[in-house]
Amino acid sequence: MGMENILRTTASRWMEGKGNFADVVISCRIRLARNLEQHPFPNALSEIQAKQVIDEVQTAVCKAPKEMGIFQFAALEDVSPLERFVLVEKHLISPQHAENPVGRAVAIKEDQSVSIMVNEEDHLRIQCLLPGLNLENAWNEASQIDDMLEGSLDIAYGEKSGYLTACPTNVGTGLRASAMVHLPALVLTNQVSRVLGLLPQLGLAVRGLYGEGSEVMGNLFQVSNQVTLGKTEEDILANLSAVTRQIVDKEKEARQVLLQDAGEQVEDRVWRAYGLLSNARLISGQEALALLSDLRLGMDLGIVSNPVSEVFNELIVITSPAHLQFFTGREMSTTARDLERAKLIRSRLI
Amino acid sequence: MGMENILRTTASRWMEGKGNFADVVISCRIRLARNLEQHPFPNALSEIQAKQVIDEVQTAVCKAPKEMGIFQFAALEDVSPLERFVLVEKHLISPQHAENPVGRAVAIKEDQSVSIMVNEEDHLRIQCLLPGLNLENAWNEASQIDDMLEGSLDIAYGEKSGYLTACPTNVGTGLRASAMVHLPALVLTNQVSRVLGLLPQLGLAVRGLYGEGSEVMGNLFQVSNQVTLGKTEEDILANLSAVTRQIVDKEKEARQVLLQDAGEQVEDRVWRAYGLLSNARLISGQEALALLSDLRLGMDLGIVSNPVSEVFNELIVITSPAHLQFFTGREMSTTARDLERAKLIRSRLI
Repeated sequence: MGMENILRTTASRWMEGKGNFADVVISCRIRLARNLEQHPFPNALSEIQAKQVIDEVQTAVCKAPKEMGIFQFAALEDVSPLERFVLVEKHLISPQHAENPVGRAVAIKEDQSVSIMVNEEDHLRIQCLLPGLNLENAWNEASQIDDMLEGSLDIAYGEKSGYLTACPTNVGTGLRASAMVHLPALVLTNQVSRVLGLLPQLGLAVRGLYGEGSEVMGNLFQVSNQVTLGKTEEDILANLSAVTRQIVDKEKEARQVLLQDAGEQVEDRVWRAYGLLSNARLISGQEALALLSDLRLGMDLGIVSNPVSEVFNELIVITSPAHLQFFTGREMSTTARDLERAKLIRSRLI
Repeated sequence: MGMENILRTTASRWMEGKGNFADVVISCRIRLARNLEQHPFPNALSEIQAKQVIDEVQTAVCKAPKEMGIFQFAALEDVSPLERFVLVEKHLISPQHAENPVGRAVAIKEDQSVSIMVNEEDHLRIQCLLPGLNLENAWNEASQIDDMLEGSLDIAYGEKSGYLTACPTNVGTGLRASAMVHLPALVLTNQVSRVLGLLPQLGLAVRGLYGEGSEVMGNLFQVSNQVTLGKTEEDILANLSAVTRQIVDKEKEARQVLLQDAGEQVEDRVWRAYGLLSNARLISGQEALALLSDLRLGMDLGIVSNPVSEVFNELIVITSPAHLQFFTGREMSTTARDLERAKLIRSRLI
């Protein structure tokens, strides 16, 4: 089955470690919220109606021309709870989608750059995830999918309000654009609150590794637009791009200051992270992310040459709890996971 | 000059890492306090009298037959302050001896197993330092030196009180025997206070790495006899040997318990220490000793095969502040020492 393939393939397109400003911007994401005209919003759908929505979307997705990529489609109830959380850790579905599988589905492009959640908060959540700061490409790819689906589905759209969505914060363009930025130097120099604190005034929000309500770990921050209405898609993307580029500049300045003022301490920090990651026998997810962040800083500053950024991006994902359990094929205690995580990291770093 | 040679040779005989119970007992030491009949105790000596004592001892030491080893003799004032602290870190002279060089001297056997402090608290402090728990051999070697010196010096001895010493706690045999024990498992299992707390009742004292008043670092404890009067040398040695062997048993039991109950945690601890020691760029003396202690535990439990115990013993000494500065040939700030220490440790572990 195709979903099995996606679950087993740890390398997603966003992990390539390439793209603009890839030393600070890990990945960028476009997410479009769309709803079908003839159905109530998902929270008001009966089980039968939900199934109808899924069927309609699946039919539309199957019509996708080959050049748009091959999609795997699955009802979430056919995916085990563990596998659903593997998809969350891959950033292909939201934690909320994974937690409530009934009447929900997902379509995923084989290179894992595009996913379509069906009956999450909206009937359709089209997402495109790419490495680096490449919002325009992600937007183009998501738009193509959107156009393709709109070709066979009746999408709810109001002349004045634009795309109609379940939650008013998404009305209008229905567009959420975000960038995952790695800001170790701003954190180390205690500037991160000041820099990110300005974002709400600019219409942007800051979140943790897994989006809304999730914790910041490994100095990874998700920056996204707050407003979806009254602005064009182009304005939203231009604003996020410009602000992200400023954050990139601040982070790079802070890295240079760190190197100049505390070069020995930074080198020590990076090498200690390498020493622990390549030798520890037990390591928690939280510690792994913190040390990987230090190591990544060392890679970006040229202090260490191993690993490369693909390995870093992959390690962030595959050392997460669901991945660890999925790949060992069994449920594991916290200690067993810490043991397996340490083993996996060592195998990738040596 | 010969003292230069001793200063530059980092390998002392006690570092060999062999001998009885060498996985717990790093080294053992015999120290004999002796005084010359015709002179006041050192604290009451004039500068001229002190010089006379030094001359008399030097003459006696020079008469030593070749088979007793070659001795280097130096007035402490001819040894730089830094070099004196190198000798302290080698455990060849006491901190007190190094701090007050006026009217004091030292004779050191070339393999660094024997040293004779002149005009420390007593006119003569004869010390023999060997690897492992080999108090009898150390005692035999120290006795030979003692007999040799008594052949040409007039040693103060009372029929009833035995050897007369400056401090009454040394009167009688003038013998202080000690063993340096490495007790990481007793520390990790919180048993060390209980086990070592029993020693005063057995007439034994516990001290830190550099003897009286020094701090315990790297889980290294010095156990020595308190009483010197009213007991024969044989009793003193037998008592210390027996108690040390019990401490060895307790430590080994604790190591087995640790391996059984927390094997993964112990392995993790050992490998983390290895990872940090072989990668850190800045490391304090305190941290180095703590990590070396973890690594040594790993060696003794067969978790790591690198380094061997000679390297461990040597590292304890050569990463100390005076050694670091002596070998780089310059005075160093704390940060410079931390940098040099880290470099030295890496070079020895890789």
